[in-house]
Amino acid sequence: MPTLNEVARRAGVTPATVSNVLRERGRVGEATRQRVLEAVEALGYRPHLSARALAEGRPPTIALMVSSIANPFYPEFALAVENALRRSGRFLIICNTDGDPQTGRAYLEQIAGTLSAGVLVMNANLDFADLRATVRRGAPVVLCMWERPLDPPGLPCVAVDFRRAGELAAQHLLTLGHRRIGAIVGSKVSGIHAARYDGFVAAMQAAGLDGACAPVRYAPDTTQGGYAATTELLARHPDLTAIFGTNDLPALGAMQAAADLGLNVPRELSVVGITDIQLARESRPALTTVAVATIEAAELAVELLTDLVEAPDPATGAAARVCVVSAPRLVIRASTAAPRAKG
Amino acid sequence: MPTLNEVARRAGVTPATVSNVLRERGRVGEATRQRVLEAVEALGYRPHLSARALAEGRPPTIALMVSSIANPFYPEFALAVENALRRSGRFLIICNTDGDPQTGRAYLEQIAGTLSAGVLVMNANLDFADLRATVRRGAPVVLCMWERPLDPPGLPCVAVDFRRAGELAAQHLLTLGHRRIGAIVGSKVSGIHAARYDGFVAAMQAAGLDGACAPVRYAPDTTQGGYAATTELLARHPDLTAIFGTNDLPALGAMQAAADLGLNVPRELSVVGITDIQLARESRPALTTVAVATIEAAELAVELLTDLVEAPDPATGAAARVCVVSAPRLVIRASTAAPRAKG
Repeated sequence: MPTLNEVARRAGVTPATVSNVLRERGRVGEATRQRVLEAVEALGYRPHLSARALAEGRPPTIALMVSSIANPFYPEFALAVENALRRSGRFLIICNTDGDPQTGRAYLEQIAGTLSAGVLVMNANLDFADLRATVRRGAPVVLCMWERPLDPPGLPCVAVDFRRAGELAAQHLLTLGHRRIGAIVGSKVSGIHAARYDGFVAAMQAAGLDGACAPVRYAPDTTQGGYAATTELLARHPDLTAIFGTNDLPALGAMQAAADLGLNVPRELSVVGITDIQLARESRPALTTVAVATIEAAELAVELLTDLVEAPDPATGAAARVCVVSAPRLVIRASTAAPRAKG
Repeated sequence: MPTLNEVARRAGVTPATVSNVLRERGRVGEATRQRVLEAVEALGYRPHLSARALAEGRPPTIALMVSSIANPFYPEFALAVENALRRSGRFLIICNTDGDPQTGRAYLEQIAGTLSAGVLVMNANLDFADLRATVRRGAPVVLCMWERPLDPPGLPCVAVDFRRAGELAAQHLLTLGHRRIGAIVGSKVSGIHAARYDGFVAAMQAAGLDGACAPVRYAPDTTQGGYAATTELLARHPDLTAIFGTNDLPALGAMQAAADLGLNVPRELSVVGITDIQLARESRPALTTVAVATIEAAELAVELLTDLVEAPDPATGAAARVCVVSAPRLVIRASTAAPRAKG
């Protein structure tokens, strides 16, 4: 395999100049640049990424920590991250923590700063102390979908106004005429879906209902979790006419439960979710949901992390940067309708 | 950060001994081993993976090339690969080719042998010449789900008897009494699903039907592809009582099309797929399908690739190794039933 030195010799320049051309850095005249690129082409030179990364102290990969690659939202997000990263010549390592902080810590200790230049964190249930330790070891960390824009986490993040998403979902059901609405929260009481539930409660309150007393179940953030919670909610509160899920997967599970109970969606039960994953569009009936700006969030997260990797100067204040994505928006499909008049 | 030398000094051994203990290689007495591990623990030593990889000439990551991370089968497979890899201390880089051989080649040229020790290829539409070039550059390649066990590709592979899967799916519909069956093939005519379709045709033939003349559509391997193909098939052949999809996604699309056409599945249309992805279990009605041994295939692929990375001696004949996974098996769910008697 040809080396950088051979390319430099052929082009009649120093190895540093070849390096500058390849990395689009420093001042290199156009004629020299062309000569270098021709030498690269002629020799079939391929920069040795690991070696270059070590020489520069920055490896060319970025790690994405997710809590479950089997949750279909994460591949969709990973795809958006990968597309954004590829433009900057970096590669994506996906690390799946299985929602376990210990596994997450093991990944962070092994890869951050050695195998990967920076870490994107996507709802991976990681310990903040571990993330701060990662930053101290020289690998910037960006949280990809922080749920409370007004309550920043002290680490750079891309924030989504999920409280507003919960509010929009509840307002939609209320506007259709629903009053007896059950909620399925896909996290623990003070967990990452709490803001979405707050928005739901606030919208109920604003409509003169006691939102905090509406039937609610906390369940795993999966279709199975939503299925079990819906079965339980409907057994206990058969008068419910609608289900609000804090995420699309539990909402899809609610629709499955309704199907298995012989309830027609939306005629006998309306269901609304949050996120707008591909399955929301593909389910039958298609799921009404509140779409969040997933691709925008992925692109902003990559931009923010790339900035921090390129210029890790803490004096810029970037360590506490918060980017807020566009507001969530309601997407009305076939799973919601006015409640059936009482028979 | 403590170095290997510091660990060696503290343990009173040579750096080579520390390295042997950490990599579980060479002969090291138990007392020495304990002393080294205590020194590692006391100093908080963390091996620098990139550096070690370069020193050994083998980076600790494995690349998985997939054609579309948005296809839910691939995350399921990636998860199984990752679980198997993690046990060997390696990490997974997922490369998404978008079904484009050019993108695949770019990934292979950038990562194989530098960033990754070996490459797992999962239906990524890659050019075989590119794969052979990757092997020549020193990165072993394993094809993860070769579709024709009796027709090996000349590269190490894990093979699945997909012809048998197509046969099982067709036999199931025939046993239920279906005779007018449409097929949706999720690839080009001579593409990766051809073996599945061959199995379908053979089973029809064996039942005395002209399988090769049964209505068939070649479509993208997606729900949308299956949806469009089913809509077209049913418009042209309204007498069809069943649809065979060569993959679960087109089969799920067939069920969506039936729902939108007001056809009850399975009463008015039976649908069967192949693979058994999670969505097959979660759809309503749940999809009857032929399950392939996905986790077994992932584990075998990792084992095969790890062997090749550890002992890349071509004299072992490993370059042409073919592992065949357990036979596919029919999983009967709610999307298939006997055809309705003619009204």
